[in-house]
Amino acid sequence: MKFSIRRSAFIAALNDAQRAISSKTAIDILTGIKIEVSASKLTLTGSDADISIETVISQEDEKAALEIEEPGSVVLPARFFNEIVKKLPEDTMTIAIDARFQATITSGQAEFTINGIDAETYPHLPEIEAENKLVIAADILKRIINQTVIAVSTQESRPILTGIHLAYSNGELLAVATDSHRLSQRRITLNDASSQDYDIIVPGKSLNELAKMLGDSAENVEIRIAENQILFTFANTSFYSRLLEGNYPDTDRLIPQNSETTIEFNAVELLHSIERASLLSHAGRSNVVKLTLKTSEQQAIISGTSPEIGNVEEDLSFKQLEGNDLEISFNPDYMKDALASFGQTDVKMSLTLPLRPFILVPTEDGTNFVQLITPVRTF
Amino acid sequence: MKFSIRRSAFIAALNDAQRAISSKTAIDILTGIKIEVSASKLTLTGSDADISIETVISQEDEKAALEIEEPGSVVLPARFFNEIVKKLPEDTMTIAIDARFQATITSGQAEFTINGIDAETYPHLPEIEAENKLVIAADILKRIINQTVIAVSTQESRPILTGIHLAYSNGELLAVATDSHRLSQRRITLNDASSQDYDIIVPGKSLNELAKMLGDSAENVEIRIAENQILFTFANTSFYSRLLEGNYPDTDRLIPQNSETTIEFNAVELLHSIERASLLSHAGRSNVVKLTLKTSEQQAIISGTSPEIGNVEEDLSFKQLEGNDLEISFNPDYMKDALASFGQTDVKMSLTLPLRPFILVPTEDGTNFVQLITPVRTF
Repeated sequence: MKFSIRRSAFIAALNDAQRAISSKTAIDILTGIKIEVSASKLTLTGSDADISIETVISQEDEKAALEIEEPGSVVLPARFFNEIVKKLPEDTMTIAIDARFQATITSGQAEFTINGIDAETYPHLPEIEAENKLVIAADILKRIINQTVIAVSTQESRPILTGIHLAYSNGELLAVATDSHRLSQRRITLNDASSQDYDIIVPGKSLNELAKMLGDSAENVEIRIAENQILFTFANTSFYSRLLEGNYPDTDRLIPQNSETTIEFNAVELLHSIERASLLSHAGRSNVVKLTLKTSEQQAIISGTSPEIGNVEEDLSFKQLEGNDLEISFNPDYMKDALASFGQTDVKMSLTLPLRPFILVPTEDGTNFVQLITPVRTF
Repeated sequence: MKFSIRRSAFIAALNDAQRAISSKTAIDILTGIKIEVSASKLTLTGSDADISIETVISQEDEKAALEIEEPGSVVLPARFFNEIVKKLPEDTMTIAIDARFQATITSGQAEFTINGIDAETYPHLPEIEAENKLVIAADILKRIINQTVIAVSTQESRPILTGIHLAYSNGELLAVATDSHRLSQRRITLNDASSQDYDIIVPGKSLNELAKMLGDSAENVEIRIAENQILFTFANTSFYSRLLEGNYPDTDRLIPQNSETTIEFNAVELLHSIERASLLSHAGRSNVVKLTLKTSEQQAIISGTSPEIGNVEEDLSFKQLEGNDLEISFNPDYMKDALASFGQTDVKMSLTLPLRPFILVPTEDGTNFVQLITPVRTF
C-alpha cells in the first residue's frame, strides 16, 4: 500500500472515523484505525463495536489530491496516528506500508515509522441491504436527536431506556426518550417517504455522536435498518450503530391529556430564572426548586433553598396563567434541559396535581413536541 | 452595609479578587470573599494565605455607578456569591447586610438571601511600608515572569526552587528559576529605578497568577517589599504574596561560558520539530529525544523512539552549524518550554559535551536571556 494525499482533507476524514474509536475498548484491534486503499479511493474505518464509522475519500475529490501508487490496507494505532498526521510539517503526506505492516509516514523532512497490524484481523462491518431506506434532512434529524436525547437514561439498570425509541409508520416519524423521571417526544411528517414501517430503539450515545457529525444543512441522510443494526449514510460517511433489543415501554399513556393549571412563559426567560434558583438547590442535599402558582393574584414564584448557604426567590414574568392554584417541586436540571431544547420560543406548561407529571409544549404547536417532567415529593 | 453597583464592573473586580481564593484551603474563612464599603469606595479581598488580592472600586468610577447607602463589611461564600452575581437578571444589583450578617442580593425580580460572616474575623493583610518602591511596566514584568516561571520546580523536596529568584542592584533586575534540570535567566535594566537593592525569592505560583492579571500595556506596576512579603500595585489592584525564606543556590556558575558546538535555529521551526519527535518519546518509558549534529556534513537530525509504537526522524533546517560533531539526548518537554519562551525569533544553541548542560540564547542578544537544559544519559 502506498498513497499520498493533502493533509487537510485527510485530517477531516480521519477526525470523523475517529469519533467511533474509544481508548477504553477491551478489544485491542479497535484502538486502531483501518486504512484501506483501492484503485480509486481511500476508506478509513473506526469502531468501538457499538458504533462504526466509515469515511471515504475518492480519487476524484480534487481538494484531497489523493494519489494512489499501490492499493492495500493496514490498521494503525489511532491516537498516535492522528497526532502524527496533525503535526506533520507540510501540506501533503505520503503513507507506505511494507510487507510486515510497518507504516512509513513522510511529510517534508519528517519521517515517522510506526508499527501497524494486518487489516484482515479487523472486524467486518455489518452488511445492510440497500433497498429500503428512509430519507430525512440532516438539520431536522439533528434537531430531533438533540431534543429527545436529553431524556435518555444514563443508568444501566434498565438498558432499554438508554435508547431513543424511533417509530415510523404512515409517513410519520415518532422519537421518544424517557429515563422514567422525564420524557421527551418529538413527531414529524416525512413528506416523500416511501419506506416500510419501523419500530426500533437506537442507543442514545450513538445518536448523540451522530448528531455531532450532522451539519445544519438540509443535505439528505439515508437511513437503512437491518435485523440489529442501523446505518446512516450522508456525504462520504457511513455511520453504523447496533440497535437495542427488547420492547420499549408504552409511553403514550404517560402523557397527561388534560390539565388543571396552565401557564405560558418565554422559554429562555424561564430558563434563566430556573438557573438562578438552581444555584442554591445544587448546594443543598435535595436538588429541588419550587414553583408556586397563584391564579387569583396572577403570581408565579420560583424558589430554591440550601440550608447552609441561603435561599433565592423570584417573581416570574409570564404570558398567561389560568386554572387552580398549585405548588409543585421539581429537579431544576430536568427543567433546564427541557427549556433549552425549545430554543427562543414561548412554551405552555400544563399541570394537574403537585405529584403528577406536568408537560411543556411550544405554545404554537402543542402536538408535535412534548417535554414531560415528574415532580419531586418534598413533604 | 448597603450599596448598589453596575454588575459588569463588579464582576470584573470580583474575578480579580477571586483569583486568590482556593476551594482547597483549610482555613474556612478564606473560602469567603470580603466586601468592605466605606463612605467613598468598595473593596473586595480574596486570599489563600500565600496570595492576597485586593481590588477597589471608587465612587468616582462612572462605569461602576457605585451608590453607597450605608458603609459596612461582610464575608460571603466566594464561589456561590460569584455564581449568583454572574446569573443576576439586570444590569444593576443591590447588596444589603443585616445585623446578623445575612446578605440580601437583589436584581430585577430576583432576590437571594445568603448567610455571611462578620468581616472582623477575616485575616488582616500584611502592612507594607510605602516609601521604597520599584517601578516596572506591566508588559515587561509579565514577559519576564512567563519566560522564567517555566523552569520553576513543582517538587516540594527543595521548596526554595519553587520560587523565582529576583535580584535588583545597580538599576538591573535579574530573574532566575531552576528546577535543577533546567534553568531560565532573564536580565533587564530598569531605567529610572531609584530603589534600594533587593534579593528575594517569590513563589512561582504567585508570579504565575500575577502574570495572568497583568495586561500587555506599559502601565506601571509598583513593587514594594517588606520582611517576608511582596506587594504589586497596579490599576485598582493590590497583589500580595509571601516570600520564600532561605538562600537561593548560586546559579551563575551553572551557566557554561564556552562551547564546542554551536547551531542556530528559528525557534518556532525547531519547536515544531521537537513536538513531532516528542510524539513518540512521550509513548516510551523514557521521555527523551536525540539530537545528532554532524558538522562536516552540515546535518542536524532529531529523532524519537517508542519501542512499542515506532520511531521518528527529521532532518532539521538550521542557519549555522559550527564546531565538533555531537550526539545529545534531552527531555523534549524542557526544550518545548524553552523554545516557546523565545517567541518568533532565531536562537543560538551552544553545547559542549553529551552530558553537559547546553544553553539557548536569542541570536541577537546573548546576554540578557538564557535558557539552560541538562541532557539525559541514555547509555
